[in-house]
Amino acid sequence: MAAERVPDATVSRLVTYLRVLESLERRGVVRTSSEQLAEEAQVTAFQVRKDLAYFGSYGTRGVGYSVPLLKRELRNILGLSRRWKLAIVGMGRLGQALADYPGLGEVFEPVGFFDVDPAKVGKRLSRGVIEPLANLERAVSERGVEIGLIAVPAEAAQEVADRLVRAGIKGILNFAPAVLETPPHVPVENVDFLAGLARLTYFVSRNVGEEWVG
Amino acid sequence: MAAERVPDATVSRLVTYLRVLESLERRGVVRTSSEQLAEEAQVTAFQVRKDLAYFGSYGTRGVGYSVPLLKRELRNILGLSRRWKLAIVGMGRLGQALADYPGLGEVFEPVGFFDVDPAKVGKRLSRGVIEPLANLERAVSERGVEIGLIAVPAEAAQEVADRLVRAGIKGILNFAPAVLETPPHVPVENVDFLAGLARLTYFVSRNVGEEWVG
Repeated sequence: MAAERVPDATVSRLVTYLRVLESLERRGVVRTSSEQLAEEAQVTAFQVRKDLAYFGSYGTRGVGYSVPLLKRELRNILGLSRRWKLAIVGMGRLGQALADYPGLGEVFEPVGFFDVDPAKVGKRLSRGVIEPLANLERAVSERGVEIGLIAVPAEAAQEVADRLVRAGIKGILNFAPAVLETPPHVPVENVDFLAGLARLTYFVSRNVGEEWVG
Repeated sequence: MAAERVPDATVSRLVTYLRVLESLERRGVVRTSSEQLAEEAQVTAFQVRKDLAYFGSYGTRGVGYSVPLLKRELRNILGLSRRWKLAIVGMGRLGQALADYPGLGEVFEPVGFFDVDPAKVGKRLSRGVIEPLANLERAVSERGVEIGLIAVPAEAAQEVADRLVRAGIKGILNFAPAVLETPPHVPVENVDFLAGLARLTYFVSRNVGEEWVG
C-alpha cells in the first residue's frame, strides 16, 4: 500500500496501464518501457513513471518492465488478486447481463441477485436465482458480500444504497444515472453509460461546431 | 459554445449537475443554488460556479438557478437537445441490453445492430434486427449514424473502431476493456465497468487495510 495519498486519476490510469499490459500480452510482448506504456495509454512517459512511483519502482533502468510482472503488481495494487463477492440489485436487462457477464472471471463472484418485481423473482440465471429485495440485508451479511452493484432506476438507487450501507457493504458500483450519498468508508464508483454518451455528444458537438467555423 | 477550452473534468461534472437537477425535479424542487448543487454533486459551490461560468452565468444573485432552465441549458451544452443515431457493434448480452435500454429515450436512436456471429444475425430486437458486420460501413453512411457503441471482446475492439472511423463515425462509446486509438476528430469515451470495479476494489482494499492498521 502507498503511504502517500494516491490521486483518483492515478488509480484510473493504473487500470488503463493494466488494459495496455493485457493488450501487449495478447500480442506476445514480454518486455515494455514507460515510453511504450505511455504511448498506448495516451499519456506521457513521465506520467507513467510518476504513477508507478507511488507504489515503488517496478522498472529497471535500461531494461524496462516485465509485462507479466508489472501486470501482476498492478492487479495486486488494485485489489484484483483476491476474490470479491458481489450482490446485484435490479435485475432488468442490464442487471441480468451483469449477472452473466463472463468478464467477471475469477475475481468477482456474484452471490445474490435481487429485484422488487415478483415477476422476476425465482427466475433462474447461470449463477443463481433472482430473490426478493427483502432478502438483501441477510444475504449481504450471511454470504459475505462486499460489493453491491446497483442497476435499479435512478429514483430507487439512493434507497438501495442506504440498505446496502446498513447491511455492511464495503463498496458500491452504481449503474443508475443518479448521484449517490454514502458514508466515507463506503466508496461509490459510477458506471453511468448515459454520462459517457453525454460527454461524447459534448465533444462531438464541439467538433461539428469547429467544422462549421472552419 | 464556450470559447475557452473546457477541462474534461468540467464536462464530467456538467453531467453530474444534470443528474442532480433531474433528482431535484423528481422531488418537485424548482429553484436551487450553487450551494445545493454543490452539496448534492459532492463538490464545492466555487467549483459549480466556475464550471457554469465557462458557458455564461445562469444564476441570478440572491435568487439562484431555475431547475428546469438550468437543466435545459446543460442539456443544450452537452448536445442532448437533438437526436443522435447510434450503431451498436457486438450483440452479446451487453449489446442486446444496450439495444433495448429505455434510458436512450428521445435523444439516442439505435439504427443498426451488428455482430459477426451468424447465429445472432437475423435476430429481432425491439428496435431492429441484428445484421452481419459486413453491413457496418454502408449502414453508417446511409443511415446517418454518428455514434458507434462498441460492445465486442477486447481483442476485436480496435478493428471495429478502425472500421467505424473509416466509415465516418463522429464518436465512439467503448464498452470493451481495451484502450482504443482513433484520430483526434473521433473522440472515444470508455464505459469500462470492470475498470469501475477495479477502482472500487482499490479503494475498498485501502479502507480494509486502514482498519487493520487502526
